[in-house]
Amino acid sequence: MLISFEGLDGCGKSTQVQLLAERLQSLGYPVRIFREPGATPLSEYIRQLLLHTEMEISPIAEMLLFNAARAQLVHSAIRPALEAGAIVLCDRFDDSTTAYQGYGRGLPLAVVLQCNQIATDGLKPALTFVLDVPVELALQRSQKSDRMEQAGLLFFERVRWGYREIALREPDRVICVDATYTPDEVHTTIWHHVCRRLPSLL
Amino acid sequence: MLISFEGLDGCGKSTQVQLLAERLQSLGYPVRIFREPGATPLSEYIRQLLLHTEMEISPIAEMLLFNAARAQLVHSAIRPALEAGAIVLCDRFDDSTTAYQGYGRGLPLAVVLQCNQIATDGLKPALTFVLDVPVELALQRSQKSDRMEQAGLLFFERVRWGYREIALREPDRVICVDATYTPDEVHTTIWHHVCRRLPSLL
Repeated sequence: MLISFEGLDGCGKSTQVQLLAERLQSLGYPVRIFREPGATPLSEYIRQLLLHTEMEISPIAEMLLFNAARAQLVHSAIRPALEAGAIVLCDRFDDSTTAYQGYGRGLPLAVVLQCNQIATDGLKPALTFVLDVPVELALQRSQKSDRMEQAGLLFFERVRWGYREIALREPDRVICVDATYTPDEVHTTIWHHVCRRLPSLL
Repeated sequence: MLISFEGLDGCGKSTQVQLLAERLQSLGYPVRIFREPGATPLSEYIRQLLLHTEMEISPIAEMLLFNAARAQLVHSAIRPALEAGAIVLCDRFDDSTTAYQGYGRGLPLAVVLQCNQIATDGLKPALTFVLDVPVELALQRSQKSDRMEQAGLLFFERVRWGYREIALREPDRVICVDATYTPDEVHTTIWHHVCRRLPSLL
């Protein structure tokens, strides 16, 4: 079972991934955590390239690079973990590319979805949480300054509303959670949704 | 006008690109030469990653990386050169991914073509030369030993026959040239085909 966490940097993804992992583990579920782009040597290499370079990278090249990292992560980490029976928690997955490169940078959604599909080889999360916070709050919480963060406020507004639209388009898979609440309150909402989908431990 | 040169390493692409460029320039045509993956900082970075790393790279990730380099090359070099009126000669273009990752590695051709189309943003060469030589001769001529070269003889056989099939499928665009002849003889054949398509200099 693959569960992904989405939202702007600073929305609280890592905290919620951690809280959910601990709760699942305390009940005896095997859990693996991955973050995107990262978790394989190739993906970490691409992560560095994408976040910290001064090179010119076109929107289409950026989308292909994120998806190259994702393809490697799916191939060498996520699929093997799922096949071994783990619950896999992913800090970002394909909806990030739809939100950032599609809604944010303005690439045609059909092209982004096609490219995501190629990279994931058809693997979709069973459940996705979009942690929704106003852009100002996310930026204040994250205090990062990398290539993506420098793209400007309007860009992040489009990403935020893109995420909300993704949730509206796929209500069975994507849950939009108000993440302005405390971490414990957000976790309670997430846990409620996860419980209903958990495979039995028996 | 975009003209691409394809074939196994060692088939004589660089020589033919050079001979054609000189002939066109001697007639007054503005010519730009690019090689794939390369010619932009991002593409050179990816080229190094792809050809000389010991990292595990899955076939899909490899295809996405080559296409990320291509997307950047199209965006920042090829399209601007075409718009400036140059004849662009490309040492490898999208058919390389079809031949190596599709026919060679066995990725579904429909997926490779879809991914190529995303990266090139629909730009297709007006004319493509496949320089066809037996695998043994190509390996003997190239004497390189990088990641792609180590993939084995059977792999290169599939790539070679893939190229020939590409030429059969798109006879109006792709010309398969017997490149076991001398460079001058091969150039004569290429020149014959290019002449018929040249835009007038008037």
